[in-house]
Amino acid sequence: MKHVDRVEVYDTTLRDGTQREGMSLSCEDKLRIAERLDALGIPLIEAGWPGSNAKDAELFRRLRTRCFDRATVVAFGATRRVGLKAQDDPSLRALLDSEAPTCAIFGKSSVLHVTEVLRATLSENLAMIEQSVALLRSHDRRVVYDAEHFFDGFAADPAYCLATLRAAIDGGASCLVLCDTNGGAMPWTVHRTVREVAQLFDVPIGIHAHDDGGMAVANSLAAVRAGARHVQGTINGYGERCGNANLCAVIPNLELKLGMRALPEGALEKLFEVSHFVAEIANLTPNEHMPYVGRSAFAHKAGVHVSAMRRNAEAYQHVQPERIGNHMRVVVSELSGRSNVLSKAEELGLDVADGAESEVLERIKQSEAVGYAYEAAPASVALMLKRHAPSYRPLFSVRDYKVFVGSAFVEATVKVEMDSELVTTMAEGNGPVAALDAALRKALSAFFPSLEEISLTDYKVRILDGRDGTSAVTRVLITMSDGQQSWCTVGASSNIIEASCRALVDGIEHGLGIVNRQQRRAS
Amino acid sequence: MKHVDRVEVYDTTLRDGTQREGMSLSCEDKLRIAERLDALGIPLIEAGWPGSNAKDAELFRRLRTRCFDRATVVAFGATRRVGLKAQDDPSLRALLDSEAPTCAIFGKSSVLHVTEVLRATLSENLAMIEQSVALLRSHDRRVVYDAEHFFDGFAADPAYCLATLRAAIDGGASCLVLCDTNGGAMPWTVHRTVREVAQLFDVPIGIHAHDDGGMAVANSLAAVRAGARHVQGTINGYGERCGNANLCAVIPNLELKLGMRALPEGALEKLFEVSHFVAEIANLTPNEHMPYVGRSAFAHKAGVHVSAMRRNAEAYQHVQPERIGNHMRVVVSELSGRSNVLSKAEELGLDVADGAESEVLERIKQSEAVGYAYEAAPASVALMLKRHAPSYRPLFSVRDYKVFVGSAFVEATVKVEMDSELVTTMAEGNGPVAALDAALRKALSAFFPSLEEISLTDYKVRILDGRDGTSAVTRVLITMSDGQQSWCTVGASSNIIEASCRALVDGIEHGLGIVNRQQRRAS
Repeated sequence: MKHVDRVEVYDTTLRDGTQREGMSLSCEDKLRIAERLDALGIPLIEAGWPGSNAKDAELFRRLRTRCFDRATVVAFGATRRVGLKAQDDPSLRALLDSEAPTCAIFGKSSVLHVTEVLRATLSENLAMIEQSVALLRSHDRRVVYDAEHFFDGFAADPAYCLATLRAAIDGGASCLVLCDTNGGAMPWTVHRTVREVAQLFDVPIGIHAHDDGGMAVANSLAAVRAGARHVQGTINGYGERCGNANLCAVIPNLELKLGMRALPEGALEKLFEVSHFVAEIANLTPNEHMPYVGRSAFAHKAGVHVSAMRRNAEAYQHVQPERIGNHMRVVVSELSGRSNVLSKAEELGLDVADGAESEVLERIKQSEAVGYAYEAAPASVALMLKRHAPSYRPLFSVRDYKVFVGSAFVEATVKVEMDSELVTTMAEGNGPVAALDAALRKALSAFFPSLEEISLTDYKVRILDGRDGTSAVTRVLITMSDGQQSWCTVGASSNIIEASCRALVDGIEHGLGIVNRQQRRAS
Repeated sequence: MKHVDRVEVYDTTLRDGTQREGMSLSCEDKLRIAERLDALGIPLIEAGWPGSNAKDAELFRRLRTRCFDRATVVAFGATRRVGLKAQDDPSLRALLDSEAPTCAIFGKSSVLHVTEVLRATLSENLAMIEQSVALLRSHDRRVVYDAEHFFDGFAADPAYCLATLRAAIDGGASCLVLCDTNGGAMPWTVHRTVREVAQLFDVPIGIHAHDDGGMAVANSLAAVRAGARHVQGTINGYGERCGNANLCAVIPNLELKLGMRALPEGALEKLFEVSHFVAEIANLTPNEHMPYVGRSAFAHKAGVHVSAMRRNAEAYQHVQPERIGNHMRVVVSELSGRSNVLSKAEELGLDVADGAESEVLERIKQSEAVGYAYEAAPASVALMLKRHAPSYRPLFSVRDYKVFVGSAFVEATVKVEMDSELVTTMAEGNGPVAALDAALRKALSAFFPSLEEISLTDYKVRILDGRDGTSAVTRVLITMSDGQQSWCTVGASSNIIEASCRALVDGIEHGLGIVNRQQRRAS
């Protein structure tokens, strides 16, 4: 059997990741993410900095009672303060109090930082590193040592940088992580530096990269090729400034490009799901153009590509999307050719009448010109194809609606036609769209009891051409689910209520179709 | 004087960039972007594929009459079709008809693609390349040859790949661009391959990278280090799937990390602005975490970083942000310490009463807990600091409002108090927020004539925790401008109208403060 090199993956989404501007996680959020990371097979999860805030201390308390299959919880902190004894340092005490079996502490490697930021002597800094690591070791913690600003420091004064690493080893550190804290290092420097350092020490060398030069993933891989066997990063590359090394790109590159093992066998396929799960918990719009795990990563829009891929699926894919749980997709847009609409219809399992794809394409182009976007709303495309059939009869249609919003109340009225009967209903809600949704459901539920199974799970608003301010076109994307599958529809108008109403109607109509089909199948 | 190596930058935002899912540019948009790229000093602008759609043919007609300072317009196309004479190929004719002085054509390098996708013989493909280039040369066009799938093809059959390049040279190509079309190549492969190819040919070698492995920027730099002197990419890395090489990261890396010249002297400082301009024209939310040009690229949130940077500004910056027209920023959020609020107040030029920063920080934390986010809304933070002063008197306050939306009309009513006088006004609008804005302006304009100078320029809506559907909290960010400066405010509520109203009120109050200050200064 071929020997496969292993790389230890260290996730810091919960600590360094939350330094991202616009990101904040509750204690409950962190626990949910930690469980997912464990299920993915990440061996080390840095959960927080117990010395820096009360929220993280609480998190470690709750983590103590959790049983993880594979993951070890890591607590993060700094070397002791200048002039203090290690055992008296409150931050180191908090690390011990966290009861995390592994601790990561960062120390200064760079002469500039020791003298200018820390305002300590060079020898005091060495003592701080050794004593801090030794204290944690004396309480039987495994210690990962993060050498802050290592590459910048090494360029300026390699001898001192190496002395700081030796101090960590003398203290008992079991892993030396070289950090590109400012994120500006280039892969060739990282490669040369890691190779030099790896030859000098017996413990595993790690890499902690930031993306300020757009090189975090490249630097992580360069380090591994130079001998590093521990890689720190975050899911989706979340992190301060430009972010940390994106594990959702680093891990597939390690496994699929370098042929190394980073996750347990079969776990790589969960990566797409984990990436989107973390984005959802963090309440951040996922970057769908991310390598490997973005929904657009294997989406083809160019007519030439789509027709080539109908001949050979590998023609425009660097890896099989299924390897990371992603899938190939054809994008339907105004730039599409007929083959895109046909591929989409096949994907949706719809029959298309001869020539209908051209007419549907024409309608798509007209609607996109006024603000619709079908790329993210395949259910609206499916309805368009369906409505084009000569036998199509709508389940219901909204004849009129009114929404009334005051500083203390929100009401909506709808008039709906079903089987040539008109029904008018009124409902309240927290906001205008919630009220409209409630009024619609009131009107429809007597006719379509299965509507109960359908819930609205996501509602997104995009203002097109924001330069027109509040008169600009508003595009609304609505996601609904019946608990098993979900579907997305779109509406657009200069009036947000009108746009929402259109997306709601499409979502309900498409959903009733799905639920009815399932019931027919079941009976 | 030290010799500085030059790299020719080739922008394909207008062609390959628009393959990005969700991106579409009108002819007018493309012209505006081309002008900006020219002003930035980009020497080659690939404007479109005149043979593929009528929109691009029209664009080239309009480009003919434009005078660019430095840029040359490039038309993109493919080698002739199998079995056709070059002069009879409609796509090559369209290239000539475009009258673009430089043409880029792509041809197949990979045996797999020639036989499986093109379904041509290997020798026919060589003839297609040579004859297509020769036709364009015979009409006096400079020809850039794009060798599609070069790295994958080279790994499988280097001899054939080199034969395709020789065919292009025999036809008269003046630049050979090696394309990583599927985007999965790794930097070490790119480096080795480019070095080998560069030794064999006298013309400049170019690189065209995609980001499917997260390596587009690293691959572009690896190629340049191996001898390439022509780099293709797009602004903000727009492009199909995971995008093209991001010129906003490639260019600063070339200039600031490799010490090469990619833009005219002094032009690098315009990069931040160009990046945001293109995002705005393309109507895409900018990725503010982009290296170099993201608004978060030099934003510091961690308390330790902020206090270290007050000691030494270089401590946590890999380059000076001003070099690319960006700037350092301190982020105020619930994770902030008091020093973040103090730095923010200094940045805004506000005096803070003793101890007030702690109370403001407390209010920020409370508001963020219910959905506000101040990171992007410094004007709301400024108002909060201002309202905290004992001498503060509001210019006006909204006592009540109502919005009425039907399928055919939108009306808003507001009751506003100024100088203990109550004014009630009503206005119509395209949508509920536009109507509310109009009614507010009606009520205020008699008291504050300078309100005329203030316009609403951007309106963004974010649904927080979309899983709650339409009852989730809505966050509204509003940008206003007086033509000289702009400011951003925030409002949050489960009712979108209420959230909008709060952001509107903040925006108007902050704006009136600015305009009044300017008028006092002028008088």
